[in-house]
Amino acid sequence: MLPEDERVAVGPGDDAAVLRLTGGELAVTTDMMVEGVDFFPGEDPRRLGRRALAVNLSDLAAMGAHPEFFLLSIGFPPEKGDDFPLEVARGALTRARPFGASLVGGDLSGAPAIVVSVALWGRPSGRPLLRSGGREGDFLFVSGWPGRAEAGRRLAAGSFPAGALAIEHERELLAAYHDPEPRVALGLALAREGLASAAIDVSDGVGLDAGRLARASGAKAVIELGEIPISPALAEAARGKGEDPVEWALSGGDDYELLFSAPPSALARLTAGGPDWNVPVTRIGRLEPGAGAVAIGPSGERDIAASGWNHLGRRA
Amino acid sequence: MLPEDERVAVGPGDDAAVLRLTGGELAVTTDMMVEGVDFFPGEDPRRLGRRALAVNLSDLAAMGAHPEFFLLSIGFPPEKGDDFPLEVARGALTRARPFGASLVGGDLSGAPAIVVSVALWGRPSGRPLLRSGGREGDFLFVSGWPGRAEAGRRLAAGSFPAGALAIEHERELLAAYHDPEPRVALGLALAREGLASAAIDVSDGVGLDAGRLARASGAKAVIELGEIPISPALAEAARGKGEDPVEWALSGGDDYELLFSAPPSALARLTAGGPDWNVPVTRIGRLEPGAGAVAIGPSGERDIAASGWNHLGRRA
Repeated sequence: MLPEDERVAVGPGDDAAVLRLTGGELAVTTDMMVEGVDFFPGEDPRRLGRRALAVNLSDLAAMGAHPEFFLLSIGFPPEKGDDFPLEVARGALTRARPFGASLVGGDLSGAPAIVVSVALWGRPSGRPLLRSGGREGDFLFVSGWPGRAEAGRRLAAGSFPAGALAIEHERELLAAYHDPEPRVALGLALAREGLASAAIDVSDGVGLDAGRLARASGAKAVIELGEIPISPALAEAARGKGEDPVEWALSGGDDYELLFSAPPSALARLTAGGPDWNVPVTRIGRLEPGAGAVAIGPSGERDIAASGWNHLGRRA
Repeated sequence: MLPEDERVAVGPGDDAAVLRLTGGELAVTTDMMVEGVDFFPGEDPRRLGRRALAVNLSDLAAMGAHPEFFLLSIGFPPEKGDDFPLEVARGALTRARPFGASLVGGDLSGAPAIVVSVALWGRPSGRPLLRSGGREGDFLFVSGWPGRAEAGRRLAAGSFPAGALAIEHERELLAAYHDPEPRVALGLALAREGLASAAIDVSDGVGLDAGRLARASGAKAVIELGEIPISPALAEAARGKGEDPVEWALSGGDDYELLFSAPPSALARLTAGGPDWNVPVTRIGRLEPGAGAVAIGPSGERDIAASGWNHLGRRA
């Protein structure tokens, strides 16, 4: 199941793996996903493995780091059978392979609910992208179409009647939730070319994560609601619920888009895009003197720094 | 809570940590511990954090690697309160600090049961100790006193009446289970001095783990039951249950002693010990041509390769 990797001196199966590393900076992240909190009970194990990897790949993307190695630990009810963790691993491998990341170890345990824990290492392609580098006057940018994952989550939860959405819209939104695309190529370009001053991935909502970037950077995030890119699929889904799709982007979470700051001089380069980014970048606001995160819309300015999910799977 | 570490360019709090590494080999391990499977419900959070680290430190010890960095992820029922994961982390830090290992990141999630997942990496002090290096004719050695953790587990489960054991024995056995001492200094010496041909840590019972080392080495493990070192505390506990303490060592698990093979020429050096090992080493058998693991005792030879626990917390 594991491809050859000359950087791996000892692979899975011993007390530890042994890697051959060159010196330099190494970015390291980890995420734990729990059934009933971070994903729905009954989730397909391959899709679960793909998503667990994607969430970690997104963290490295937000640092501008190229993924290299990962560990995968799985807790599961033994009655799921011995093939269950293999399927999770297969899914994880399909997500990791296009980025050249190798599985080097892991652990299995019985558990009352499914738990998937990933640790992922990689190499910054330039100066690492921190949350703290933003400066007053910088513009704020977001990749892709935040809010789609919230729509997909509601679809997966069964809160739309069958046929409520155009089939291609439904597919787009479910994929955004179940199988998010980590913005690795974009993050690498931001770090390599020194384009962004600060970056974070949108795991908990544009509002909450903009607030985190602003706090780390010692500035105030101002989001212009009219600038947030809304995919037609998300617009249809929110309209069907009588809700504003922009609110889903602000507080939905699970998007794994990149939110980053850059000086105004980078605007043309960023909106022109890169040959391998495979995602558009949109200016949605700016950093100003002050603290917190606010949204500006037709009805004025309001606080959005608490719009999103906290780490326990509850509304912040 | 986190001490300064000049090897850490970016610590916890960003999307990923960034480490400054020199080139060379890196040993990497991970273990996931689940409430009700790997530890008793209601376990003290600091002790849980210490044990989670110890289990991973033991894996690096079995590779002959010096621990450097770790990640700590904790799933827990939110009603445990925000201080619960902090207490787990504090316990982990007290275990890691004497070895110079730094906490560089982690994740928190709500969960229906407590889950602690650690990823730990470090530097081999010489050629890494693999399970596969054993040769026919090598002796088999074990550190310390296997079986004590099984006695401690039974004590913690309440299967002994109060006062059944001498108080200092009870304390020794409970500590062996709740707070095992990873044999890091011994493992480092084995790798640095090239003393051992193969090594594994005893997590699942001397029988099962001897079988694993033998299989990886393409040999047969022969354990002499009369040579297994039995602590007086274990002897008292097993006697109280009318059982043979040697059986607890063979199949008890959770000891985190090192089991390793070495050529007969290393016998004197190994039993003389090292200034910082803080644990005796005992010859308990040998590797022979063949496959599997057997025990030789007064009643002859029997298969022990399946004596112990499997990864789902069930008897193998």
